[in-house]
Amino acid sequence: MNTKLENIIGSITPANVNVANIAQKKLDLLTKPQGSLGVLEECAIKYVAARQDIFAEIAKPTILTFAGDHGVVEENVSACPQEVTLQMLSNFSNGGAAINVLTRQFGIDLKVIDVGVASECKHISKITHKKVALGTANIAKGPAMTIEEAESAIFAGIDEVEKVIADGATLIGTGDMGIGNTTPSTALYSVFTKSLPVEITGCGTGISEETLKHKVSVIEKAIKINNEKLTDPLNTLAALGGLEIAGICGAILGAAKNKIPIVIDGFISGAAAITAFQFNENVKDYCFFSHLSAESGHINIMKKLNITPLLDLKLRLGEGTGAALAMNIIQAGVKTMNEMATFSEAGIDNHNE
Amino acid sequence: MNTKLENIIGSITPANVNVANIAQKKLDLLTKPQGSLGVLEECAIKYVAARQDIFAEIAKPTILTFAGDHGVVEENVSACPQEVTLQMLSNFSNGGAAINVLTRQFGIDLKVIDVGVASECKHISKITHKKVALGTANIAKGPAMTIEEAESAIFAGIDEVEKVIADGATLIGTGDMGIGNTTPSTALYSVFTKSLPVEITGCGTGISEETLKHKVSVIEKAIKINNEKLTDPLNTLAALGGLEIAGICGAILGAAKNKIPIVIDGFISGAAAITAFQFNENVKDYCFFSHLSAESGHINIMKKLNITPLLDLKLRLGEGTGAALAMNIIQAGVKTMNEMATFSEAGIDNHNE
Repeated sequence: MNTKLENIIGSITPANVNVANIAQKKLDLLTKPQGSLGVLEECAIKYVAARQDIFAEIAKPTILTFAGDHGVVEENVSACPQEVTLQMLSNFSNGGAAINVLTRQFGIDLKVIDVGVASECKHISKITHKKVALGTANIAKGPAMTIEEAESAIFAGIDEVEKVIADGATLIGTGDMGIGNTTPSTALYSVFTKSLPVEITGCGTGISEETLKHKVSVIEKAIKINNEKLTDPLNTLAALGGLEIAGICGAILGAAKNKIPIVIDGFISGAAAITAFQFNENVKDYCFFSHLSAESGHINIMKKLNITPLLDLKLRLGEGTGAALAMNIIQAGVKTMNEMATFSEAGIDNHNE
Repeated sequence: MNTKLENIIGSITPANVNVANIAQKKLDLLTKPQGSLGVLEECAIKYVAARQDIFAEIAKPTILTFAGDHGVVEENVSACPQEVTLQMLSNFSNGGAAINVLTRQFGIDLKVIDVGVASECKHISKITHKKVALGTANIAKGPAMTIEEAESAIFAGIDEVEKVIADGATLIGTGDMGIGNTTPSTALYSVFTKSLPVEITGCGTGISEETLKHKVSVIEKAIKINNEKLTDPLNTLAALGGLEIAGICGAILGAAKNKIPIVIDGFISGAAAITAFQFNENVKDYCFFSHLSAESGHINIMKKLNITPLLDLKLRLGEGTGAALAMNIIQAGVKTMNEMATFSEAGIDNHNE
C-alpha cells in the first residue's frame, strides 16, 4: 500500500470517551425525562465525542456523491443501461434528481464527483472531475481495478472531503451513482461479512426473479475468480469494488482522520464504509448509518454488524438521499443538547435527582 | 352530542382516490427507479390525495401543543409532580423545551394551548388561553370530565386548528403536555382497541416496575368504575380522557374537516387520533403517524391497528417532538414529487417503460 495512504489510515484514532460522558451528563440536566429523546441523544453524544468537543456544532452540512461505472454490467445484472450513469450526471447538474431536491430542502451543499464514469463528462457543468478510469473491468472475469486505480479513487475521496472540511463543513454525507453498483457492493459485503451472496443479493433498481438468480451466480463467480486477490482490504476493494465505492471509502477515511462525522447513505455507501472499517476499526466512531435500504440484503448485513440505521423508509435510490434525510436527525440531536434549557435554568422540579 | 360537533364530524369525507392515482403516475415518470423513494412516495400520495389537489404544496407547517392536567395523578401513577405541567408551559414560553428547539430548527410555527392546566396560567406569555377546567377529575374514582367539558375542549382544538388553517397552514402537527397523561391515554387505547391494560401500559416519564403494576391496576379500576359510561366515543373520551387529549382530538377532526393533513405525535396524540377515528373513520385519510414511541404499549397498539409510523427513534417525550421530525419526511415526499425532473425532461432512457 501507498505509504501516504497507510499513514492516513494509521492516524485515525477513536472518538473521545470523556466528551461522550460529559455529553451524557449534559443531556440528563435538560428539561425532559432522562433518555426521552432516544436516538437523538445517542446522535448528539456520538457527534460531539467524534469532534472531541462538547461544544461542537454542525456547520455547512455537505453531501459528496461519487459516480462510476462497472464493467460487470456486460453480464446483464442491472435493469438499467450503463448510459444512465452519464445521463444522471447531467440531471444532477441541472438540479432535477432526488438528491438535488432534498439538499435544497434541507440547506445541504451537494458536490457530485466523477471518479469513473464510462464516458467523458467534462462537458457537464457543476461536476467535479476526478476521473481515474472509464469504468471498472468486469469482476466476473478478473479484478475490477488495479491497486493504483483503487488508491487513486480513494485519494480522490480523501481530497474532496478534506476540501469541504477546510471550507468549514462539520457534517459530511456520502452518496453514489453508478448503474450496476449493487453487484460489486454485494460482493464486498459477502467477503467482509462472511455472508453467502444468495443471502444478501437484492434486486437493485428492479430486476426480475430470474435475473436475481443470475446476479447471485455472477457475484459467486466474481468472488471465486478473484479469490487469490482477496488478501487484504485494499486488494479486495480493487478486485471486487468500484471506482465510486473506492471514492466513498476515501471520503470516509478522510472524514475520520479529521474527526468529522460522516453519514453513510445506503447499500452502496455502506459497502464503502465496511471496507473503511477493515482498514481501521476506529473509523466506526465517525460513521452514522442513515437508513435501512429496501435492497433486500441490507437488513441481514446490518444485523450481522449489529448496526441499527437511523431511518427505515424503504428507500433504494442511493445518490445520498438517505444521508440527506438522516442529517436532520443528527442536527436535531446536537441542537436539542446545545439549546434546551436545564431544569435549574427553567426553574423546574427535577424528578430525576 | 352537540349538533354543531355532530355536523363537523359528519362533514369529514375520504381522501381523493383519483388524485392518489394521478400522483402514483406522476411519481413513476420521475428520474428514479419506480418506487425507489419508498415511504417518501407514500407520503406524497397521501398528502395530495388528502388535499384533493395533485399540485398541493406544504406551507406554514404548524404544531399545536395542547396542555392539561389529570386528577389521576393523586393515585401516584407518574414520576413527576403535577406542577411540572405549569412549569413546562413557562419553559415553552421561554423557548427552552425540546419542541422549541426542533420547531426553530425546521421552520415550523409552534402554538401552545392551555385547555386544562390545574393552575391559572394567564401570566405566561405566548400561550393561547382556552382553559376549560383546572384539570380533570380522578378517572380511578369516576369520569374525568363532563360531556360539556369534553366538547368544549374538542371545540378549542377545532377553533385553534381552523385559525392556523385560515392563516395558511397546510400541514399541522399535534403535541401534548400533561403530567400523568399516559394513564388516561392507555385507558382510551384499552377501550378502543380492545386491549388489556397490562398489554399496553408503559413507564411514562420513568416509573419503577412496582409503580407500573400499580398503574395497570389504576387503569383497570378506571375502566371498571366508568364502565357504564363507555357507550360511545364522546362519552368514553369524557370518562377516561384528558382535556388536552380532547383538544388534540378536536384539532384532528378540524384538520380532517378542512382536508388538511395532520401529523400525529406519539403515544398521547395517538390516543386522541384513535378517538377521532371512532367518531368518523374517514379521519384516517388525513393522519400521518409520526413515530413509534418508546412508551412500551405503543408498538402493540400500532400493530393491532396495522399502522407503521414514519420514524422509530425511541422518543418518549411528547410535546410534538416526533411530529416535528416527521414533517420533514412528508415535506421531502411532496417536494421530490413536485420538483424532480421526469425521464423525458432529463433525456434519460426510462427502463421502466
